[in-house]
Amino acid sequence: MNNQSKKTQFRSFLLPGIFLMAMAMVVFTHCADPEEEKELTELQQAALRFTEPLPEDAFEEGMVRSEERIELGKMLFYEPRLSKSGIISCNTCHNMSTFGVDQLPVSIGHMWQKGPRNAPTVLNAALHGSQFWDGREPDVESQAIMPILDPLEMAATEDHVLAVLSSMPEYVERFRQAFPDEEEPLVYENVGVAIGAFERILLTYSRFDDFLRGDAGALTEKEKRGLEVYMEVGCQSCHAGPALGGNAFSVFETPAERESGESDPGRFDVTGDPRDMHRFKVPSLLNIAETHPYLHDGSVWSLSETVDIVAMDMLGRELTEEENTHIVAFLEALTGEIPAYALDLPVLPTSTENTPRPQFD
Amino acid sequence: MNNQSKKTQFRSFLLPGIFLMAMAMVVFTHCADPEEEKELTELQQAALRFTEPLPEDAFEEGMVRSEERIELGKMLFYEPRLSKSGIISCNTCHNMSTFGVDQLPVSIGHMWQKGPRNAPTVLNAALHGSQFWDGREPDVESQAIMPILDPLEMAATEDHVLAVLSSMPEYVERFRQAFPDEEEPLVYENVGVAIGAFERILLTYSRFDDFLRGDAGALTEKEKRGLEVYMEVGCQSCHAGPALGGNAFSVFETPAERESGESDPGRFDVTGDPRDMHRFKVPSLLNIAETHPYLHDGSVWSLSETVDIVAMDMLGRELTEEENTHIVAFLEALTGEIPAYALDLPVLPTSTENTPRPQFD
Repeated sequence: MNNQSKKTQFRSFLLPGIFLMAMAMVVFTHCADPEEEKELTELQQAALRFTEPLPEDAFEEGMVRSEERIELGKMLFYEPRLSKSGIISCNTCHNMSTFGVDQLPVSIGHMWQKGPRNAPTVLNAALHGSQFWDGREPDVESQAIMPILDPLEMAATEDHVLAVLSSMPEYVERFRQAFPDEEEPLVYENVGVAIGAFERILLTYSRFDDFLRGDAGALTEKEKRGLEVYMEVGCQSCHAGPALGGNAFSVFETPAERESGESDPGRFDVTGDPRDMHRFKVPSLLNIAETHPYLHDGSVWSLSETVDIVAMDMLGRELTEEENTHIVAFLEALTGEIPAYALDLPVLPTSTENTPRPQFD
Repeated sequence: MNNQSKKTQFRSFLLPGIFLMAMAMVVFTHCADPEEEKELTELQQAALRFTEPLPEDAFEEGMVRSEERIELGKMLFYEPRLSKSGIISCNTCHNMSTFGVDQLPVSIGHMWQKGPRNAPTVLNAALHGSQFWDGREPDVESQAIMPILDPLEMAATEDHVLAVLSSMPEYVERFRQAFPDEEEPLVYENVGVAIGAFERILLTYSRFDDFLRGDAGALTEKEKRGLEVYMEVGCQSCHAGPALGGNAFSVFETPAERESGESDPGRFDVTGDPRDMHRFKVPSLLNIAETHPYLHDGSVWSLSETVDIVAMDMLGRELTEEENTHIVAFLEALTGEIPAYALDLPVLPTSTENTPRPQFD
């Protein structure tokens, strides 16, 4: 049997299967969610044309979603010993207490060095089409292992990380349980896979999700008017999808950059393509009221001011004060709930005599 | 009626009341705790001559123990915006995930400066007779507000802290609820009172508490033998009380200090008394297996080595390998449970336009 006929045979089983599953899902959804039966308002329908309620998690088909892997990922997220100094963890710059950001223009890393760009939140990040402001990594798994090695951030090496983790029997055992089918579970890549698994449950449901799911009263009149203005102005042309952003790329220079004449090349540094000069990933707007300061250089603290800047710069639209107020009211309704599980600090394993010692320089 | 007769009249009601309450407590205690009736082993009795099970909390008579105050204290403990840089909180050096320490020889603070001494754990610290290695503060309330202002640590000023807190309506309201009888609740001293209230519940119950409460099987045979050796050697002459330390002061120079010829003056810097030269508070031994590195300069990583050093230096006793192993086994049994409430990260209030901006230098 050649490859082609194998595929055909596979498909002949697959198609009826998919059809049955789809039917089952329709029936299930219909029974399980009485909201579905309600007639949606025009505003809800309009919103559902550019976004959708958050899914239950951000795991994709074929990915392993095990408690062991998520818990290990949480431990690694809060583990300062992954850094060279032993004092910086993912949570240092993506502080769960403040919606996954450090509330600084740019982050402070190893030896008090400043990072080049504002740290984006880890909340809902797994829904983005790519990671980092310049989109240079495809997913949270590949993203998570980069700041650990960045000399400006955690300043470690792969060897350091593996030496730290393999020095503690609890981590060795937890890697085994999180990657039960792998012969060598404790490899650097799996640090990212585990942290990524943790990040894939970091979704923050807000009243806007209730609204999209059918509860038209979940937003106030002012917030609904804000949503209308948001659409009239055209914000959804970039800030779309379940995270209201995180997919498109746009050329953008901040007022501070224009003033200084030194603009971040953005995605150009990744692709070398002149069309990518100053091009950045459009940030998500979920929890935006909590994740100041704004823009890729963290140069603007006020959400209202940021809305004005972006509307003018991206859409050529000078907002009236009223439009601005309404959009901000809508954006504030996008503040969701941080999962309680993520806020529940893990107790980390005890260092052993083999655990590498912290190095401050 | 003059004052004297008022008092007498009051006493005539009070005394029978106290008597009845005391009787009730005797009856209640007797009924509530069947362990009391068990006969204690000789080892339990011997241990109870120098220590006692941890109390329910470390609040003292007359102190306010309110949920509002403890929760506010927890928020402040995890609040990086109290620091000048906006990135260092109490939890940075007293990481709850690693038993209230940073596992560094000395801590890293503002602008990557090193502190002069090893950061002690906040767990059970409220049971100590004084605070800091040199005992310069009497309690956790007065201790907690010092590192915030220390230029090597959080590098803030009282004005900065009050500006940060009063810029966020949620904090203003929480101070009002935590200090309901005070006309001006948001004062710097109350930052310490609230953090202190949080610290007064940070007690970690271990199997040793079960042992002291009457369960002779709560320790293994090896650990019990370790307790015997601990007493034979005389460790309890300094490491006594419910925290097994935290009260006495001892003259102590670490091997690293003696080698370098530069020994920390310790308590002498506080009192100016020559007898306090190189004198330090005896540290608590609770969770000692988790709070490496050891000694006031954090110069020794191994618990076993530390036990040898201290036995020789303080008691002139060279331990056999077996004695050392047994003492370490007993010390490892002192690892307790971090209260789940303390590990449950608070979600911090949103900064406002009035919140002071982080300053990196």
